[in-house]
Formats: sequence, structure tokens, C-alpha cells
Amino acid sequence: MKKLILVRHGQSEWNKWNLFTGWTDVDLTSKGLSEAFDAGLRLKNEGYKPQICFTSYLKRAVKTLNQILDAMNMDYLPVEKSWRLNEKHYGVLQAKNKKEMVEKFGIEKVQQWRRGYNCPPPELEGKSAEEQLKDPRYAELLPEENPLTEGLKDCIDRLMPFYYEHILKAFDKYDEVLVVAHGNSLRGIVKTLKNITDEEISGLNLPTAIPYIFELDNGLKLQRDFFLAEASELAKLQQEVANQSK
Amino acid sequence: MKKLILVRHGQSEWNKWNLFTGWTDVDLTSKGLSEAFDAGLRLKNEGYKPQICFTSYLKRAVKTLNQILDAMNMDYLPVEKSWRLNEKHYGVLQAKNKKEMVEKFGIEKVQQWRRGYNCPPPELEGKSAEEQLKDPRYAELLPEENPLTEGLKDCIDRLMPFYYEHILKAFDKYDEVLVVAHGNSLRGIVKTLKNITDEEISGLNLPTAIPYIFELDNGLKLQRDFFLAEASELAKLQQEVANQSK
Repeated sequence: MKKLILVRHGQSEWNKWNLFTGWTDVDLTSKGLSEAFDAGLRLKNEGYKPQICFTSYLKRAVKTLNQILDAMNMDYLPVEKSWRLNEKHYGVLQAKNKKEMVEKFGIEKVQQWRRGYNCPPPELEGKSAEEQLKDPRYAELLPEENPLTEGLKDCIDRLMPFYYEHILKAFDKYDEVLVVAHGNSLRGIVKTLKNITDEEISGLNLPTAIPYIFELDNGLKLQRDFFLAEASELAKLQQEVANQSK
Repeated sequence: MKKLILVRHGQSEWNKWNLFTGWTDVDLTSKGLSEAFDAGLRLKNEGYKPQICFTSYLKRAVKTLNQILDAMNMDYLPVEKSWRLNEKHYGVLQAKNKKEMVEKFGIEKVQQWRRGYNCPPPELEGKSAEEQLKDPRYAELLPEENPLTEGLKDCIDRLMPFYYEHILKAFDKYDEVLVVAHGNSLRGIVKTLKNITDEEISGLNLPTAIPYIFELDNGLKLQRDFFLAEASELAKLQQEVANQSK
């Protein structure tokens, strides 16, 4: 049996301050660091033994992965990082307060930008856009690949080549694969694995730092999926994430 | 110009307790973590921009690298890990107190094992040896590659293929390369770069967590080398390391 382990990064500074983050490279809070370490202990206690790891180019995901590997005493594992696992780009909303954006644009518009499948917000502009376009970590991208905004569809579209050619491909060699990423890039993977429709996928609220296990047969067909958490704990965590959009 | 940046990991738990470590996978102390973060700030403040990183399979080196990247806000950099960058294997001395070993075997013998170029200590045995031989991180090694003891010569011999085929090779694509490793594996690299003799290399005491910069021309010929530290600070740190063997 093959196992794909997905983990959403722990609490970040801007989650705490209720700002849109997207591609902005914000740090984890101390709560986020300890949540992440705890995710590693959950995996270790249940006997998981990942053999390769994937994460994004964003600090909050990389550091969540580092904490997990530290907790598991598996710091030596190979790690492959890719911009394709980055969070959905939030365009002009990045670094803006969620409440203020609702006041400015109205709840309906902001909810569309957040949760519509193909509703990218207006593009990031000014100094923030310039900084992204000259950031050396994205120098490898073709100009048309370097987004200044994304809808969930765009985020999933740029993720998919990496998902097939790197993550699923890793199962040729390994039995357990760990992916640490973001709410929306992980939605892309879950959507594909569980055949969730475009309309329904935005309703999927992944809790932070709770390992989500997908057991696959040798043909990589999904057998079952579950979170490494008690049902009551899980319900509470998912409610917290859902409340963030209110 | 090409730049190779070497960093020896920060203080580990067993450095603090004066135990032989070698391939034992011990953690950094809180001092080690903060030394490592500080190494990242030194690099950042001097404008270094590594493009790829190499480290060992041992937690104390990986976590030193993670701290450096965090301090530089370069968590996204590619990292390649290899057992070939591991510390010299200390055989039967691993997990033993340095003073007690001097009392048991005599100062001359212990100094030979520590610093002789081709004087491996007796092999690791019993449960510790079994654990190493079944450790999944070393499953990729051929049986004859998986050492139960090493002299400095053995450590350097197994390092060299990785040094040439991965670290120096990286300069085909990149201008700045960062290597975070251990006292003896780094001796191997410095020995090669500076043509230091077998007899003299064990006298080289690298301070922990101080970036050591090698500027190379495009043919990878050494132009100059220096530490990112004030001369007075450096002398003090090197004396501390030298004192550990007394």
C-alpha cells in the first residue's frame, strides 16, 4: 500500500493578524511552530515513515516541514521545494486586512475572490508586484508563469504538473510521501484524489497542521482517507478555519 | 567569481556533555540554535546569496542549515543531503565520555584516534552497531560503504566523490554554494582546497557556526579564504575548539 500524507502549515503571523497572505513570505507564530512539531509527533506515534518530502517556496510551509522532521528524528529525509506548491496568489488583497477588504469591496465580492473557483482578485501592483517579479526564487519561471493574482483554478492548474511529475512519480520509488503546503494548493491535490467538483472544492476546510492521510493501492487508486486526529478535535479545528472567512 | 561557503554546525548536546558523537544523531543545544541563526545573519549582513545548499544526514547539521536559511529569509533554497558529509565515525568511542576514554586508553591512544590521519578507533559494536546497520537512512549504502569506524583519511575518502560530483559540480550552474557539515568532513574540503598535508590537517580547528568563505576563480582555483568574524573573536573561538581536545 502507498501512503500520501498532506499537512497544511501551522498558524502564520498573518493568519493571526487576519491579513491576506498568498505569496507573501510570512513566518510561523510560536503557536504555528508548536502545532507543526505536534504534527510530527502524531505521525511518529502512528508509525508513519515518509521517505521523501515536498513543500513550497514559502517559509511557513518549509518551517512546518522542518518541525515535523525534527519531531520524527527524520531531518535527513530528502526535501524537494517548488513554487508550484505555493499558496494561491491573492493579488491586490495580499497584505490587506480581511475585514477592511470586506468593508471596501463588500462581502460578496471578497467571498467570490476567496472562494470562487475561477474568480481571481485584481492583480497585485506597485512595489509589491515589482518585488515579486525580481525575487531570485522565481527567476526560474517563465514570465507568463509568474502570477500577480490567481483564482483557485489557476492555483490548481500550475500545481498539477508538479503533482503528477514529482509527487505521484515519487511512488515509483517510495511507499510514503509527505507534502507540506497551503490551504489552496492542498485543495488541488484533494480535489484530484477525491474527484471533488469545481463548485464543491472551496467548501473543503483543511485544519492546520493535522496530517491528512491518503491510502492508495499500487495503481495509486484511493482506498481511504482520514485525518490523524480525534473526531471531536477535528470538528473544532475545521470550524475554526471556516470561521476565518466570516 | 565563485564563492564556496562552509559552516560547521553549532553546539550540540554532546559537545556540551563532552561525549564523542560521530555518526550519533544528537540535537543542537539552544546555544547551538542561536549560534546557527547568527551565522545566517552574518551571511545576510555581508550580502551573501547562496543558490544551493548541501548538508549531512545528521540533525545537528541539518538544523544549523535550517536556522541559517531562516535568518536569511532563504528557506526556499534547494538543499541536498548526503551521508558523505557526515562527521567522521568515531567507532567504539561514540557516546563515550572523552575524559573517561583518556583514563581507560591513555591520552596518547585517544589523541591518535582523534587526530591521527589514518588511525581509526576500534569498531562500534553491539546494539549501537546493529542500529546503525538497520537505520533506513543508510539503506542506500553498499555494505562496504557503511562504516563502523573511520580515521580522518576514511572520512575524507568517502566525502571526495560527493565533493567533486555534487558540490564543485554545482558551480556549473551557480555562483554561491553553501555547505553545512562537521569538523572532520569540512577538514576534508579545506585540505583539498588549500593543499594541506595529511600531517597538518588535523591541526585545523574550525570554529562552530562561523561562515568560512572561499573565493574561487571561474576555473575553481582558490583566490582567497577568510572567516566572517573579527580577528579577536575568531582567535577566541578557535582556542575554545582546540581546548576541547585537552
